[in-house]
Amino acid sequence: MRMSDEARLIYLPLGGAGEVGMNAYVYGYGKPGKERLILVDLGVTFPDMDTTPGVDLIFPDISWLIERADRLEAIVITHGHEDHIGALGHFWNDLRVPVYCRKFTGNLAARKMDEHGADPEQICVVGAWPEVTEAGPFRIGFLPVSHSIPESSGLVIDTPAGRIVHTGDFKLDGAPGVGEPFDAELWHSVAGDGVRALVCDSTNIFVETPGRSESTLSDNIRALVASSKGMVISTTFASNVARVKTLAEAGRDAGRSVCLLGRAMQRMVAAAIETGVLTDFPTMINHEEAEQLPREHVMLIVTGSQGERRAATAQFSRGKYLGLELAAGDTFLFSSKTIPGNERAVLKILNAFSERGVDVVDDNYGLYHVSGHANRPDLEAVHDLMRPRMLIPMHGEHRMLRRHAEAGEAKGIASMVAVNGTMLDLTGDRPVVVDRIETGRVYLDGTRKIGALGGVVRDRIRMALNGLVMLNVIFDEKDEPLGDPWAEIRGLAEKGRTGTALVEMIETETAEFMARAGAKVLRDDEKLETSLRRVVRQVAVEEIGKKPEVTVVISRLA
Amino acid sequence: MRMSDEARLIYLPLGGAGEVGMNAYVYGYGKPGKERLILVDLGVTFPDMDTTPGVDLIFPDISWLIERADRLEAIVITHGHEDHIGALGHFWNDLRVPVYCRKFTGNLAARKMDEHGADPEQICVVGAWPEVTEAGPFRIGFLPVSHSIPESSGLVIDTPAGRIVHTGDFKLDGAPGVGEPFDAELWHSVAGDGVRALVCDSTNIFVETPGRSESTLSDNIRALVASSKGMVISTTFASNVARVKTLAEAGRDAGRSVCLLGRAMQRMVAAAIETGVLTDFPTMINHEEAEQLPREHVMLIVTGSQGERRAATAQFSRGKYLGLELAAGDTFLFSSKTIPGNERAVLKILNAFSERGVDVVDDNYGLYHVSGHANRPDLEAVHDLMRPRMLIPMHGEHRMLRRHAEAGEAKGIASMVAVNGTMLDLTGDRPVVVDRIETGRVYLDGTRKIGALGGVVRDRIRMALNGLVMLNVIFDEKDEPLGDPWAEIRGLAEKGRTGTALVEMIETETAEFMARAGAKVLRDDEKLETSLRRVVRQVAVEEIGKKPEVTVVISRLA
Repeated sequence: MRMSDEARLIYLPLGGAGEVGMNAYVYGYGKPGKERLILVDLGVTFPDMDTTPGVDLIFPDISWLIERADRLEAIVITHGHEDHIGALGHFWNDLRVPVYCRKFTGNLAARKMDEHGADPEQICVVGAWPEVTEAGPFRIGFLPVSHSIPESSGLVIDTPAGRIVHTGDFKLDGAPGVGEPFDAELWHSVAGDGVRALVCDSTNIFVETPGRSESTLSDNIRALVASSKGMVISTTFASNVARVKTLAEAGRDAGRSVCLLGRAMQRMVAAAIETGVLTDFPTMINHEEAEQLPREHVMLIVTGSQGERRAATAQFSRGKYLGLELAAGDTFLFSSKTIPGNERAVLKILNAFSERGVDVVDDNYGLYHVSGHANRPDLEAVHDLMRPRMLIPMHGEHRMLRRHAEAGEAKGIASMVAVNGTMLDLTGDRPVVVDRIETGRVYLDGTRKIGALGGVVRDRIRMALNGLVMLNVIFDEKDEPLGDPWAEIRGLAEKGRTGTALVEMIETETAEFMARAGAKVLRDDEKLETSLRRVVRQVAVEEIGKKPEVTVVISRLA
Repeated sequence: MRMSDEARLIYLPLGGAGEVGMNAYVYGYGKPGKERLILVDLGVTFPDMDTTPGVDLIFPDISWLIERADRLEAIVITHGHEDHIGALGHFWNDLRVPVYCRKFTGNLAARKMDEHGADPEQICVVGAWPEVTEAGPFRIGFLPVSHSIPESSGLVIDTPAGRIVHTGDFKLDGAPGVGEPFDAELWHSVAGDGVRALVCDSTNIFVETPGRSESTLSDNIRALVASSKGMVISTTFASNVARVKTLAEAGRDAGRSVCLLGRAMQRMVAAAIETGVLTDFPTMINHEEAEQLPREHVMLIVTGSQGERRAATAQFSRGKYLGLELAAGDTFLFSSKTIPGNERAVLKILNAFSERGVDVVDDNYGLYHVSGHANRPDLEAVHDLMRPRMLIPMHGEHRMLRRHAEAGEAKGIASMVAVNGTMLDLTGDRPVVVDRIETGRVYLDGTRKIGALGGVVRDRIRMALNGLVMLNVIFDEKDEPLGDPWAEIRGLAEKGRTGTALVEMIETETAEFMARAGAKVLRDDEKLETSLRRVVRQVAVEEIGKKPEVTVVISRLA
């Protein structure tokens, strides 16, 4: 058995393991408690009304790492998706180490840094494998791989304890359109000297069929655009530059002028052109030019495939956007899939288009969209290619990690489910859990970062579910009530069962309570508040059948 | 052209046309404005956090019909699903006419009436076609059809202007397991004398493949249960009695004792047995007996396939339910599909089961679930079978109605999309829009019915998104401020950008405003309130980057 003070290689996911979103993975090498660290990716996840109303963004809680920032050597970003890069600007000032990534990702990362008051000069652009970067005891190389954004990279992380391959997000695509194809020989060559651990994307482990190439869509999209009569409008993820290009080319080849709408779409294409990953993109026109052309000569490519309220797609569904308006006979193509949780928003848009007589085409049958993640057969092909000693599934909900680990074990690879906060020692023959770190989520709320468990969001949810009664009582200098209690309500039915205003019933009942209550209760703020809250709730239950939130404000004149 | 005071046949959907849910369709016959009416179905739809937080149920706004209740002859219920029957008890006292339905549906309907203070004796059970019931100028027959609940019926509605066939919800299933198979000859015989209008389910118009029979699942379910090692737990819609029977039989045949959990499940099976639609159901054990048996001898069939928080499935995902607890090696089968909007809740449960080591099997590949609605080829088969003069698509979102109408037009049937509130005259050769009625939604909120547009729910959503500041100011008899303003917050970050408490900043700034303000502002409640609200918002935007809801309470001592 190894001595406990020998150097070890550790893995600690702080986000992304047990969920799809907010990726943040720590690797460390050194004596226990003194490991030198690197952080791979620093992403966000998106809020929803059910659990995080009013929240702007969700970050992983990286307190553990911030407390150990002196041991951090570098941040490494695999690719430019928000769930891998989105928190970088928000936390860089807490970490203050160089950020390594490739050129296109660097372009996006620099902007993120700049927007949030971090120094964009800290972005260090590095070339593809076999180029490597030293960071403490680590040597890191960026291994090109195909995904749904250009320049996605797996990481070759060499350590004194052996080689780790961290796949990042990937699929096996020999013809991704934009960016590098998956190069099995290159990946295999990396495995030559032995891979200690494969830390691997798990998103599509439940999909049993082999993945399809981005290139399979081109003919379908061309045929659709060519056969459309009115204006053609299409949406996809802005970062899927290959798809945007396919759409634009289909438009051009059908004799249409192409117009990109939505800031994210324009920015992403600009970044891809600037960094040289996108070439030969069709000439674009702006929205004013589009407005002047006959509809059948226009192809719009717009943001908002997930039904985001303020994006171009949703705006078109409600009416005009930048002077343009959809009309009967136009065709709207969703070249995208709906992420779970966004179904209602997207359906609302589909139906709004239907009401306008716009023909909506979506991905029902996979004709116009392919996933960016490796399916189960592809994942197994990578296991076989890399022949790692250990498999650590990442980037997935618990059920995905579990199924992926089962797939690894079935091949005789030592596999382990390690969710956020699980520190693994990878130095031996099998992964060993050596610590459990407290992790969680931090919310960006307006301009503040607030803890997920601080009660702020819980209070909002309660007000949304139960409504609110505010009750004011005033006492004079002698602790005698000055007038009757005064109630206001928000988010509650105005009239009760008897037809009387709820506010009136509350004021009457609380006044009666005060008249009955002894001086002892009236002088004790805490007791009085509890009692009044109880009276308010009783009235509400009886009158409207709800137990509202209650705020009692007691003012005592000094 | 017909004279305007000639008797006419009208159709008016008040719910269900342009949405999936809260079905309520009015038919009328007579002189304009004096038509005698019947109501087909009176269902609910379910609230969600995004648009209707805290709401208990959603009803169609049937004010139009309530105002004309003296012209209503009958309510007719096609089948017992909540979106067809759920509002019956809540509105019967406003309508007060007999309710016609078949036996099993009647059993459920009587309970609904009883639960909501309506008279269950008003339920009139009628037999299947060719039995008919007279209701004013209408003769109504219940035409058996297959669906995902026993005894679903299409309606043959004979009027002086001809025959209407209102399909209700249906699929073409020759072997539905429980309840009557679809009988093409019977339906065809009804079409013999000519069908003026086919008012037809549109739910699955986008599914291009023919529907599958309930009976195709039996072997798959049997094989799965037989090969499972630990306890088997399965969930489906409680009302899908055929599925519950298939599951129970698979359990029994694998040597397992069957236990139903969840009130809805037990009640539905009891109703089916009581009314004779369900026979030969395997012997059941109760939860205490289940607890005593070895896990591999138990099969639970439970409620909660949509992830409902309080149903058995969700409770099992969180821990014990009635003394029973799932364990590693158990198998959980979702014999159901997830309704759009419920994905997040269901995924949460899948992952909680994964963490417990429970193997979850869901309907990914259609092995364990079939839809209860007719797909496009099935709908076209029914068009061909019934050869109606007109087709009015119902029961579907706008895009579904539109696609369905296109399918009808392509066959040369006069088809029209008529969303909620569209009154059609069906007397002529084509449907003609003769009126637009104001419709909408009514919320059951606690025990009160509130209008969807009354602002109550809007206020809740705003509090959830923006948080709330309550500000109190007190003036003495001379309109001089008594002390400083006093603030409380709910659902907002406690500390601002500068590290100072938000409440403190608000109190300081509003106090300063009051000190500066002239007597004119201080004496004018409305002006003062507006100004204070603006000050509070400015502080909040600066300190925490949010614009909260603000309630200002001004107390003036008399």
